[in-house]
Amino acid sequence: MEVRERIRSLQEKMKEEGIDYYLIPTADYHNSEYVNEFFKVREYFSGFTGSNGSLVVGRTNAGLWTDGRYFIQAEKELSGSGITLFRMQEEGVPTIEEYLVRNMKENETLGFDGRVVTASYGRKLEKALKDKNIVIRCEKDVAGSLWTDRPKMPGNPVSILPEEICGKSVGQKLAQVREKMREMGCTAHLLSKLDDLMWLLNIRGKDIAYNPVALSYGYFTMTEAWLFLQKQAVSDELCRYAEENGITIKEYDEITAFLGDVREGKVLLDESNVSYALYRILRDKAEIAADDNPTEKLKAVKNPVELSHMEEVYLKDSAALTKFIYWLKTNIGKIPMNEYTAAMRLDDMRREVEGFLDLSFPTISGYQENAAMMHYEATETENKELRAEGMLLVDSGGQYLGGTTDVTRTIVLGEISEEIKKHFTLTAVGMLNLTAAKFLYGCTGRNLDILAREPLWNLNIDYKCGTGHGIGYILNVHEGPQNIRWRYSDTMKEAVIEAGMVISNEPGVYKEGSHGIRTENIIVARNGEKNGDGQFMYFDTLTYVPIDLCGIEPSYMQERDIARLNDYHRAVYEKISPYLTEEERLWLKKATAPIRKQ
Amino acid sequence: MEVRERIRSLQEKMKEEGIDYYLIPTADYHNSEYVNEFFKVREYFSGFTGSNGSLVVGRTNAGLWTDGRYFIQAEKELSGSGITLFRMQEEGVPTIEEYLVRNMKENETLGFDGRVVTASYGRKLEKALKDKNIVIRCEKDVAGSLWTDRPKMPGNPVSILPEEICGKSVGQKLAQVREKMREMGCTAHLLSKLDDLMWLLNIRGKDIAYNPVALSYGYFTMTEAWLFLQKQAVSDELCRYAEENGITIKEYDEITAFLGDVREGKVLLDESNVSYALYRILRDKAEIAADDNPTEKLKAVKNPVELSHMEEVYLKDSAALTKFIYWLKTNIGKIPMNEYTAAMRLDDMRREVEGFLDLSFPTISGYQENAAMMHYEATETENKELRAEGMLLVDSGGQYLGGTTDVTRTIVLGEISEEIKKHFTLTAVGMLNLTAAKFLYGCTGRNLDILAREPLWNLNIDYKCGTGHGIGYILNVHEGPQNIRWRYSDTMKEAVIEAGMVISNEPGVYKEGSHGIRTENIIVARNGEKNGDGQFMYFDTLTYVPIDLCGIEPSYMQERDIARLNDYHRAVYEKISPYLTEEERLWLKKATAPIRKQ
Repeated sequence: MEVRERIRSLQEKMKEEGIDYYLIPTADYHNSEYVNEFFKVREYFSGFTGSNGSLVVGRTNAGLWTDGRYFIQAEKELSGSGITLFRMQEEGVPTIEEYLVRNMKENETLGFDGRVVTASYGRKLEKALKDKNIVIRCEKDVAGSLWTDRPKMPGNPVSILPEEICGKSVGQKLAQVREKMREMGCTAHLLSKLDDLMWLLNIRGKDIAYNPVALSYGYFTMTEAWLFLQKQAVSDELCRYAEENGITIKEYDEITAFLGDVREGKVLLDESNVSYALYRILRDKAEIAADDNPTEKLKAVKNPVELSHMEEVYLKDSAALTKFIYWLKTNIGKIPMNEYTAAMRLDDMRREVEGFLDLSFPTISGYQENAAMMHYEATETENKELRAEGMLLVDSGGQYLGGTTDVTRTIVLGEISEEIKKHFTLTAVGMLNLTAAKFLYGCTGRNLDILAREPLWNLNIDYKCGTGHGIGYILNVHEGPQNIRWRYSDTMKEAVIEAGMVISNEPGVYKEGSHGIRTENIIVARNGEKNGDGQFMYFDTLTYVPIDLCGIEPSYMQERDIARLNDYHRAVYEKISPYLTEEERLWLKKATAPIRKQ
Repeated sequence: MEVRERIRSLQEKMKEEGIDYYLIPTADYHNSEYVNEFFKVREYFSGFTGSNGSLVVGRTNAGLWTDGRYFIQAEKELSGSGITLFRMQEEGVPTIEEYLVRNMKENETLGFDGRVVTASYGRKLEKALKDKNIVIRCEKDVAGSLWTDRPKMPGNPVSILPEEICGKSVGQKLAQVREKMREMGCTAHLLSKLDDLMWLLNIRGKDIAYNPVALSYGYFTMTEAWLFLQKQAVSDELCRYAEENGITIKEYDEITAFLGDVREGKVLLDESNVSYALYRILRDKAEIAADDNPTEKLKAVKNPVELSHMEEVYLKDSAALTKFIYWLKTNIGKIPMNEYTAAMRLDDMRREVEGFLDLSFPTISGYQENAAMMHYEATETENKELRAEGMLLVDSGGQYLGGTTDVTRTIVLGEISEEIKKHFTLTAVGMLNLTAAKFLYGCTGRNLDILAREPLWNLNIDYKCGTGHGIGYILNVHEGPQNIRWRYSDTMKEAVIEAGMVISNEPGVYKEGSHGIRTENIIVARNGEKNGDGQFMYFDTLTYVPIDLCGIEPSYMQERDIARLNDYHRAVYEKISPYLTEEERLWLKKATAPIRKQ
């Protein structure tokens, strides 16, 4: 098996370099959640294709850590590789640090590429391994250098977004960031998080699939701004734009030398994104103010212009998915289709939507037991035929000039069991419960999560992921700091939900080998009544796609739940029917008809 | 006004001592939540009688900080005193540290009695005031020394609890604590939290009203144990008991000299309970391992013997309250009664219960608008006459040989408005929602709180306190580490809910000047199904007292809510009717009759 050989070659190289354990996380130099092919060193050495995972290679063993979304998939992909799967956050499963502390001997050496490990994680390793006097070697990309047919580092042209799409100028945004720097007594700010940098400068790139970002760094003082980009990414137009906005463009690779020249001052940086390599340069030169990037929250709270574009884009995107569902329901069992061709059909329908730029992530189209794998991806060659039975889970979204979408529906294609109907119904109830939340300002996702989860917890069922994530604006489909979760690992951020934040709401049921259900709407937080008890808040919905009534059994619902579903469906019909043909409209009328208890 | 003069005398003394600001928290030397009269220095100087509050006195001004439970009461009691009320956790209200940082000038002096400030708070003040080079003077009880008719320090005899009541011997408990010390690499443990010490040594005291604790310190090494008690607290029997259990008894005051003699080692202590004064002695002598007292969680997870005693005691206590409600409902408008005499009647009924030792806190009996004050206490001279209208809120509990109880019912005495019925109904719904929670192991009160609060948040109403607190076993009615809250201040602990933890569940509505509603049951966490998704948990109820159906309007309830209330009432009747007279039983049958929607 290829993977075994690759690991063996790495182990030989480790021996040569005097490295006892080598860590390969899944990251680019900016700790992006998704990475360009160039950065998929972990995938190359493990065969595991999920978006989150870290490979730890010892001289005679190897382990892969991944999260609940990927347990089923990783088990499959790692089988036969000799790599042990570590299911993160499961009882009794050590973290990587715990594992290293347990397994490394005194004075041994840990290696990793310092550019693909965050400052905070690098420091955590430093601290954990200090007692054992472990040497950290992070200056070389030891594993990457063994990757013979490694793809080229991407460097696509950067484009500029018009201000009427962004709602705020670069100047206004820079002023907000500098205000935060002033409050914190900082003289400079190193920004290496790609989507934050794109947002701040109203630019977009194409260096990561589905994520319109460019490999870049930003460095800002109170009066100056530097943007580090690869030469080939920079057009004349961008040069003019940069000059107009007081931004000096420098070559991407020069960041190291540039930071090496920093002599003093207090530099604001987010240790959870800036690489350990850059951090090590800076910490010897200047005082470091470790804190969240000010852009993170500024970006997460959508401005009124962004929100109004999003509302429009979400209707069009919802209409495309609704049309797809109609097509699927009408043609299932009549024409041949499989998970992959169905996904292609949906992607094509989205491409026809005005303002379409790209998908926001590869469409997940999982039939029957495949839907139990949260991030399953059917391919042209590996996929399941769709028949007029069971369910197809479709999680998809687009990038539009006016917003990024993300939506999941589980579509009933024929007969389903009573148990599955129960799961389907209570997933919908959880989603509607959270949408209906009325809460006080100050709540985080930790407070709200149970509203979505409780109907399933009542059945002794949990889904091993968060309930919701923030969503970018013509940017990454996952963004922080907000989210809806019931517990947080060390590296996760917990943020107070602010009016204008856009969040996904996606409970689900995943039964390995049997079925998977997810129902996902995107919601936006709004301010409600403010009184002596505080600022009350609520959510509005952006997504308007029918929830398959073939999966709904009203006897599992409270009157309130039924009213919520009927209200939602009434809105779906009102908002989406104008986008449909007469035939589709007639179908939607039935698909959104009010239900009641027998 | 007396308070004005007292503050003036303190300000004169401060001038004399060269102190610019003086802090008087509400604490004894053990950071007990409730304190003996001897320690009520803050009350003496402010006139505010609530259980939580800190007074900060400057040379020409004074401010009092308290929490949401006491806003209404503090406003009343501080009126005319010249003391500014700072409503903790309200928007824009500074914390004491923020206030001091803002108001103190460079090189000024802050004074407080180091024995009544915790180590963690003392360190927080140190840190916050460092930049301004503020001097901290904490060796003198400057304010206390001005209290002319100060009560004597309490020193009541200590009693021993039989092992069949405690379920575990001192030896077993000490072994558990030492096991934790070993895990943490500690050589000694300073335990100054009174209820923890009582639990650990299976003893009880009487030095704080309603809290069966004795002023004491404990110091434990791997082989030795010292208990510091006032001479008059120690009987011959206790001496023998101590000797049998390898405990050396020393004089309470000797703790300072004793710790001064510590020379080295690693001492485990909880900085949130050990006083800043003792901490300052120790930190110069030994390494300090700051962590929770191991006793805290051990004590919170009730053992099977404790739980079985509690179940029995709660039935008897519930029966007493049920009888009281019957008496109240039968006699209201017929015989004269007021808040105070009603409370006395209930207290007397409790005293008749087998195993009764004491009340667990002063009975709160608040009629109409007085019930809006969460910790209102009617007195013989200041109280409201009860009439056959509105509602009486009664929050009460007992100490029994077999458990500590706490229960609140709001009793409808006559006509109430539709709005109040809505509040009453949704308070009950919130309480029942939380009781019905099914949740995964790992949840804390922060995850669950919204289940109780949501029905009220839906009306834009909040209650400004936690939903629930831990409850001691023949100990303090409030104990940690568990609780149910939606947010936590720095000094609050957030703990994973473990099977065997006993927690109150008490949502409410408090409308200043109008009405107050609280419905409180005590629940115990249990392990449910364990499967691949984790360990599911649920709550059992210990309290069985009818919820007044005169306040319930079924149209505000979901079917599920109605079923939960009916199920609860069926259990109330089954469990409590054996304790009642025929007359009471007939009434209870009606008071627990199933309700349904019209």
